[in-house]
Amino acid sequence: MSAIDEVLQANAAYAAQFAWGDLPAPPTRRLIVLACMDARIVVSQILGLKPGEAHVLRNAGGLVTEDVLRSLLISHYLLGTREFMIMAHTDCGMMTFTDDDLFRRLRHETGTAVVTPTRFFAFRDLEENVREQVQKVRSHPWIPATISVRGFIYDVKTGRLREVSA
Amino acid sequence: MSAIDEVLQANAAYAAQFAWGDLPAPPTRRLIVLACMDARIVVSQILGLKPGEAHVLRNAGGLVTEDVLRSLLISHYLLGTREFMIMAHTDCGMMTFTDDDLFRRLRHETGTAVVTPTRFFAFRDLEENVREQVQKVRSHPWIPATISVRGFIYDVKTGRLREVSA
Repeated sequence: MSAIDEVLQANAAYAAQFAWGDLPAPPTRRLIVLACMDARIVVSQILGLKPGEAHVLRNAGGLVTEDVLRSLLISHYLLGTREFMIMAHTDCGMMTFTDDDLFRRLRHETGTAVVTPTRFFAFRDLEENVREQVQKVRSHPWIPATISVRGFIYDVKTGRLREVSA
Repeated sequence: MSAIDEVLQANAAYAAQFAWGDLPAPPTRRLIVLACMDARIVVSQILGLKPGEAHVLRNAGGLVTEDVLRSLLISHYLLGTREFMIMAHTDCGMMTFTDDDLFRRLRHETGTAVVTPTRFFAFRDLEENVREQVQKVRSHPWIPATISVRGFIYDVKTGRLREVSA
């Protein structure tokens, strides 16, 4: 059976005992979390979040891309979030390759050059990278200074978060 | 106390009973899920996913943006995923505004015009939008035809997923 068909079976069991049908859309903790797509990261468990409490953004690396800024602006201006938590993690796959290598490999394997994505944003220094992501949010002219922006590193071996100082 | 400080307390409790420290990075179900950032959506619960099983991407709307393609390519080529599940949901905030209105509001409230984000991708028709997202992935020259791409709508009132036919 395909993985999607397996999770659809799990969803039928979830729906059968579903108890969250009356939650409003605005996150009750006024929190938005950005984390890496990494399979070992289950944001709701790591942060003790229940349905309805926080917006969650995820991409490769937990990076502040244009898409993350798009989502963050919608989250703040239309749905009232006011704290932004950025969560990188140890053993991140983004530190295992370079953009140039991956672009070359894709062109070679597929025989095709493409326009987008224009970058993969591979990086080398985990802590410095978190600082850069925080800075990208803080310096955006449409993000009010009243929004709290803090960066963290999640340790996949211990389950513990550590704040990255500015 | 700030919401971030609250979830850090929850994380200390999580780390104290952490039992997933030896998981490898490649998702064991070879699955990648894209969902909206909506606070009512807890992907791991809705799909019965345990840590280590699937990559998870999330943004405003669960839309296939350049950032999602970036993440999907990294997920497939470097970490071996081969099924891609796109999950929109009922009562989505992306159907409550227009890009023009939000750009105008942000320029007015902040007194500043900006270059990015260039679009918010608000939409009107939920089902048609899911079809478009599936198509964006299927038509990308770097996404192999062997990757299964399927689109779904999650009902926030019932907890149930429904597949959108192509």
